[in-house]
Amino acid sequence: MSAVALAAETWTRRHLLDVDQLSRLELEATLDLAGDLRGRRATGELGEDARRLVGHAVGLAFYEASTRTRVSFELAARELGATVVDLSVAGSSVAKGESLVDTMLTLERTGVRTVVLRHAAAGAPYLVARNAGLRVLNAGDGAHAHPTQALLDALTLRDALDGRLDGRTIAIVGDVAHSRVARSNLHALTRLGVRVVLGGPPAWVAGFQHWPGVTVASSLRDALREADAVMTLRVQLERAAGGGIGSLGEYTRRWGLDEERMSWARAGAPLLHPGPTNEGIELTAELAASERSLIGQQVTNGVAVRMAVLSLLAS
Amino acid sequence: MSAVALAAETWTRRHLLDVDQLSRLELEATLDLAGDLRGRRATGELGEDARRLVGHAVGLAFYEASTRTRVSFELAARELGATVVDLSVAGSSVAKGESLVDTMLTLERTGVRTVVLRHAAAGAPYLVARNAGLRVLNAGDGAHAHPTQALLDALTLRDALDGRLDGRTIAIVGDVAHSRVARSNLHALTRLGVRVVLGGPPAWVAGFQHWPGVTVASSLRDALREADAVMTLRVQLERAAGGGIGSLGEYTRRWGLDEERMSWARAGAPLLHPGPTNEGIELTAELAASERSLIGQQVTNGVAVRMAVLSLLAS
Amino acid sequence: MSAVALAAETWTRRHLLDVDQLSRLELEATLDLAGDLRGRRATGELGEDARRLVGHAVGLAFYEASTRTRVSFELAARELGATVVDLSVAGSSVAKGESLVDTMLTLERTGVRTVVLRHAAAGAPYLVARNAGLRVLNAGDGAHAHPTQALLDALTLRDALDGRLDGRTIAIVGDVAHSRVARSNLHALTRLGVRVVLGGPPAWVAGFQHWPGVTVASSLRDALREADAVMTLRVQLERAAGGGIGSLGEYTRRWGLDEERMSWARAGAPLLHPGPTNEGIELTAELAASERSLIGQQVTNGVAVRMAVLSLLAS
Repeated sequence: MSAVALAAETWTRRHLLDVDQLSRLELEATLDLAGDLRGRRATGELGEDARRLVGHAVGLAFYEASTRTRVSFELAARELGATVVDLSVAGSSVAKGESLVDTMLTLERTGVRTVVLRHAAAGAPYLVARNAGLRVLNAGDGAHAHPTQALLDALTLRDALDGRLDGRTIAIVGDVAHSRVARSNLHALTRLGVRVVLGGPPAWVAGFQHWPGVTVASSLRDALREADAVMTLRVQLERAAGGGIGSLGEYTRRWGLDEERMSWARAGAPLLHPGPTNEGIELTAELAASERSLIGQQVTNGVAVRMAVLSLLAS
Repeated sequence: MSAVALAAETWTRRHLLDVDQLSRLELEATLDLAGDLRGRRATGELGEDARRLVGHAVGLAFYEASTRTRVSFELAARELGATVVDLSVAGSSVAKGESLVDTMLTLERTGVRTVVLRHAAAGAPYLVARNAGLRVLNAGDGAHAHPTQALLDALTLRDALDGRLDGRTIAIVGDVAHSRVARSNLHALTRLGVRVVLGGPPAWVAGFQHWPGVTVASSLRDALREADAVMTLRVQLERAAGGGIGSLGEYTRRWGLDEERMSWARAGAPLLHPGPTNEGIELTAELAASERSLIGQQVTNGVAVRMAVLSLLAS
Repeated sequence: MSAVALAAETWTRRHLLDVDQLSRLELEATLDLAGDLRGRRATGELGEDARRLVGHAVGLAFYEASTRTRVSFELAARELGATVVDLSVAGSSVAKGESLVDTMLTLERTGVRTVVLRHAAAGAPYLVARNAGLRVLNAGDGAHAHPTQALLDALTLRDALDGRLDGRTIAIVGDVAHSRVARSNLHALTRLGVRVVLGGPPAWVAGFQHWPGVTVASSLRDALREADAVMTLRVQLERAAGGGIGSLGEYTRRWGLDEERMSWARAGAPLLHPGPTNEGIELTAELAASERSLIGQQVTNGVAVRMAVLSLLAS
């Protein structure tokens, strides 16, 4: 039985809207499949999986620009043999006042079967999933969810922590309140048995102390104290300027990561960041380039996880 | 004998510039081929046609932005195995002052064999066809012609009207004077034996009473009275603001379509619209989503018709 | 032994940054391979070479817009079976402040193996080659180098001059000082045994009299006197306006080419231009369209040369 068929037995979704829809078994099956595809891709042994999506058209609909995520999805789809069409937003029918749902219904009628959707409005992928027959893969909706990012982070962490996430402690530092990356990670990690400790300015972590499995620390040292791994988030400069923190300089002084501060975590704790980094703000360039950094591995795992999800949605 | 080879026997064109160049036999052969390809595409049985354009490079040159038409052509070409290159206009050599013909000659020299051209200037595809060795597929030139739209409309109508267009009456409502969709439809439908009744504000239908097979009605009720099917056109808001009609509200009151007014046509008459719609202006959202609406089928037929034309031009 | 394998025996580069890195043997092997691929592409006999880059992802990173060069590289990569991903610059991570090297490291981590890079900063491809594991193909960096242009020019000239470049005299006219095309041509042509005569306003050719194998002429007539072939460069209008020459009109009067002035060169000397042309400025429209003009052949050879280089870098 192929790895895809095996994972598909525990996966019955038509869409991937957020990770909170996935059971622990589904999460683990997806990570297993992604790891398998990653290995066979690297050695050129994808075999029949290289033709799994032949004749299956995938539409990329990025209403927010993102070269790195778009390229990751495009390569994932192409590695599986899919036909990929890119709906560039500039100059699209959007400019003619067409609604998102109408655009997606049109896309469906052209024969596209799966849409990868990024949109500034939280909930947009749910709206499409309810109103069109397309399979919807949420590539980030507003400050709400970014499920493939959470899956790639979980795969990266699991590999780095000897294949076991259950019972681990992971620190997430930064603007959790406005981060779809953080929210999806909270769902995935807690479901996989991880204890999450959040660190950041009060306005950026407020309210999360009520999530099951989540603790809010009042200092960076406290956040890192028991961490088996540390994830720091991108400071969104346009938002930081607007409020929530005193200043960028103050944020870096209190919550910025460097190699010395990483020693507050457990020995050898690795560092994750969803990229692109603001070096000198949420982390130093030295830390980003150090042996602790898994940032490059996260990118590689991103393609693998997206290959796994595209395979599962199409099966 | 394959469906493509059969249709190719009646088709000897190097270019598709407008439908007025096609005989009734060619029109019907193209629709038959499109229907055949549509069916086999839907069931995954394209067989050797899925490799018909392997090694054949198709250039998409959209000098006016249009996501839906570009995606339709791109999917059509890819389904047949073509190599597709997209000449995005923004930042192209156009910005360096190169003429359209020079750009097309360069494209030809790279090995591209067929160009799909959309251009704001009426006649641009003719200029390219005369001056370059490329096969030219007009995807819309100014207010002049949009031949694949007329073909997809004819296919949609023929299917909806029990396979027979000859002797039917079709109403076309809206800004006929400035619409390449309407002009190409007038050519195709009258050649296929359809009687066309036009409806719209006088400035938008003036002069068409002299076309053979075409009648101009003075009210929406008169336009629809004998219609076996109704096509309404997109109101181009930027033009409407400029003149030709009193106001958008007045246009909607006199010429806007809703489910009640559709009852003025023959029983069960279907509705077509080239998309994207201005709901609340030329038609109501309810009508666009109703069982009468063939708008979705038009999109599906668009891919099939473009597959047929690309196959024929390359054969 | 295949043509690619044969050429690869003399080629040991991971990158193509400029032609000055290539020995005469490597240059000749590349031109031979390009000629071979060009011929087999035209007759549909690429055979196994049409799958040479299957599973090999090529990223197009054009930080300066250029439709013609991008399309040339894209077709070259696709003809060899590569997976091509386009990193459009508008709306890329660049907008999020990410450095070029970080973007390239990310690209490498997605599994892309070769990047085709165009950048306004001279030296940018060298920076990427030193800091990322990607194979780097320089598609033009500032006013520094454009190696595939020099290769396609050399192939075009060699074909036009009965297969022999050694001992020939080639005139290059125009803004040599600011032209990456001219600089790369100087390297390639002098290494292949060509004597180069430069012509142009003093500010545009100053200093080049010290290059071995290069002469600077003080008038167009002197520049062309012994030329076996003539290459004129694109006047970069935005620069011309800024200085270096009196006026565009004066440039055309002194250095512009037409059919009559071409008679100052050796009988039958062909004309090259890297395109797109400013007709009426550096050459007349009649000359560009005349039998002497190899401009179209240069475009065709561009795809062939890029196929050769992509094959060699991947082998």
